[in-house]
Amino acid sequence: MKKLINNPKEIVNELIDGYVLSQSNIVKKIEGYTVIIRKDIPIKDKIAIVTGGGSGHEPLFLEYVGKGMADAAAHGQIFASPSSAIILEAIKAANSGSGVLLVYCNYAGDVLNFNMAQEMAIDEGIKVDQVRINDDISSGPKNNREVRRGTTATPLILKIAGAASTANLNFDTLKALVQKAVDNSRSLGVSLSGCTLPETGLATFSLEDGKMEFGMGLHGEAGIKKVDIMTADNTTQTILDLLIEDLPFNKGDEVIALINSYGSTTKMEMYIIARKIHSYLHQKNISIYSTEIGEFCTSQEMAGVSITLMKLDDELKTYYDMPCNAPGFKKL
Amino acid sequence: MKKLINNPKEIVNELIDGYVLSQSNIVKKIEGYTVIIRKDIPIKDKIAIVTGGGSGHEPLFLEYVGKGMADAAAHGQIFASPSSAIILEAIKAANSGSGVLLVYCNYAGDVLNFNMAQEMAIDEGIKVDQVRINDDISSGPKNNREVRRGTTATPLILKIAGAASTANLNFDTLKALVQKAVDNSRSLGVSLSGCTLPETGLATFSLEDGKMEFGMGLHGEAGIKKVDIMTADNTTQTILDLLIEDLPFNKGDEVIALINSYGSTTKMEMYIIARKIHSYLHQKNISIYSTEIGEFCTSQEMAGVSITLMKLDDELKTYYDMPCNAPGFKKL
Repeated sequence: MKKLINNPKEIVNELIDGYVLSQSNIVKKIEGYTVIIRKDIPIKDKIAIVTGGGSGHEPLFLEYVGKGMADAAAHGQIFASPSSAIILEAIKAANSGSGVLLVYCNYAGDVLNFNMAQEMAIDEGIKVDQVRINDDISSGPKNNREVRRGTTATPLILKIAGAASTANLNFDTLKALVQKAVDNSRSLGVSLSGCTLPETGLATFSLEDGKMEFGMGLHGEAGIKKVDIMTADNTTQTILDLLIEDLPFNKGDEVIALINSYGSTTKMEMYIIARKIHSYLHQKNISIYSTEIGEFCTSQEMAGVSITLMKLDDELKTYYDMPCNAPGFKKL
Repeated sequence: MKKLINNPKEIVNELIDGYVLSQSNIVKKIEGYTVIIRKDIPIKDKIAIVTGGGSGHEPLFLEYVGKGMADAAAHGQIFASPSSAIILEAIKAANSGSGVLLVYCNYAGDVLNFNMAQEMAIDEGIKVDQVRINDDISSGPKNNREVRRGTTATPLILKIAGAASTANLNFDTLKALVQKAVDNSRSLGVSLSGCTLPETGLATFSLEDGKMEFGMGLHGEAGIKKVDIMTADNTTQTILDLLIEDLPFNKGDEVIALINSYGSTTKMEMYIIARKIHSYLHQKNISIYSTEIGEFCTSQEMAGVSITLMKLDDELKTYYDMPCNAPGFKKL
């Protein structure tokens, strides 16, 4: 795969600079750090939402900073956690005095660095707590969800967190709400190709002609089942059956369905998948409150999709419905 | 390239069904036709904006139907114009009695079918006129712009047309304004790979390792220059020099810059390109009013990007700034 880049060592700095120049009415960066912040933070009396993680998954995380979404996002190098020093800068910039809730994906490096940054911030007198996103059902058993990775539920979780953080909830209530959004979310993907690491030009993995693999991670982590390529409908049903069983989602539930392209899978394919999601969940008496389709969390040019279901209740629905204006997630 | 589809012959019907199920609060389809319409049309006293063209370029055209954008979009099969019968249905559904302005891309098949549909609609007593989008500078000489193809300026033109159609302009004034938006827009792309036709699995064309080609069309039409892969910065400058010379864009001009991925080129790369667009236009004393980055007009999983510049004046700026709520283009 050919990429349009300049110096491979400067990819993250350059992408952040280009992004900030392009969205300068909404965000800015903290000079000297790979941190994107809302232009108008800290926001008085608001608990700040800080996210972040490795780069290379754009629009994650930087496009989810904006009104009604995250206040700041700390970025590492490609597929690598940001350092605790970078995360600490994001925390300090976002904190208005009302404290900071860290909302990030459950990967070993991120956990280490976000924990360390949290401790350092607490030492500086800032109230900080955290919620880890672990929606990917392929990365650990149902009875040990703590080991599961965070993936494409992230924009939905940040949407809920961002909206709820404007609602004058107390810190523990906000944290419990965001945790509920995580606990109600399940994702599973299927990969049809690997991707190229932009710094080296090397492939993360390869998949033979005619094969696809369920449950691969965003960084080439091993999947759970390799099979001959299936139709869109059968692929979708396979994913939905596993998601439905896992929560479980039950008859009468109402959900958001999010369909994510990992990179080179087209919207054409995603709409066809959406068609099957609608008919299959209808058949299961699970109703779809909203369908989100796009590239929300990518793995470079990997071919494949993931499906996320988030079970709603009245509270989650209220916050999901509130307007937001981050470049990667807009709601009027 | 592997694709997640079902029956290759049903791709367009299935993608439209899936799309409509997913965006049922904004759009519906005309039963029996591959036409997407706003749920609330016809809108009293409003001149309707009708667009359309071949499928396979999603989010073009269907995601640009919504409040403040197009009223209806007629879709053909993959990379093929909709028939005049399909376009006629779109015209009839959108017309409120105030007439219909067709805004579509300049390809021989589309011109033939939109012209025929226009004549049929006029025969039925509907006022219809048209503006053809021809922003792609690689597809014809400057002094013969009538032969140029329409490409990635399309969402911007539809944005202006959709906003202006709510402003109570008379028909000819609206048409002249949309024509000005077209006349002020220039696009050029570069391709790094071909794409696969989803019905057949065949590649449209191939590009050797280490090569890229400027000016290829969205359907594999021949480009203007094949070169060794260049850096993002040099690629961007090459495109900008050709765009600037063509209009020409001059010192003091104010523009919208749109960066489009044809399919598998990542946002990471597009932000890096945006960085160079900002620095290079700054150097030329051309100011950027807004930067749009995303997949606006794709060619399946083709790797590559196009850059569109639209020169603004106060009138175009007013309509660009108005809110809109189409799934593929939202402005708060």
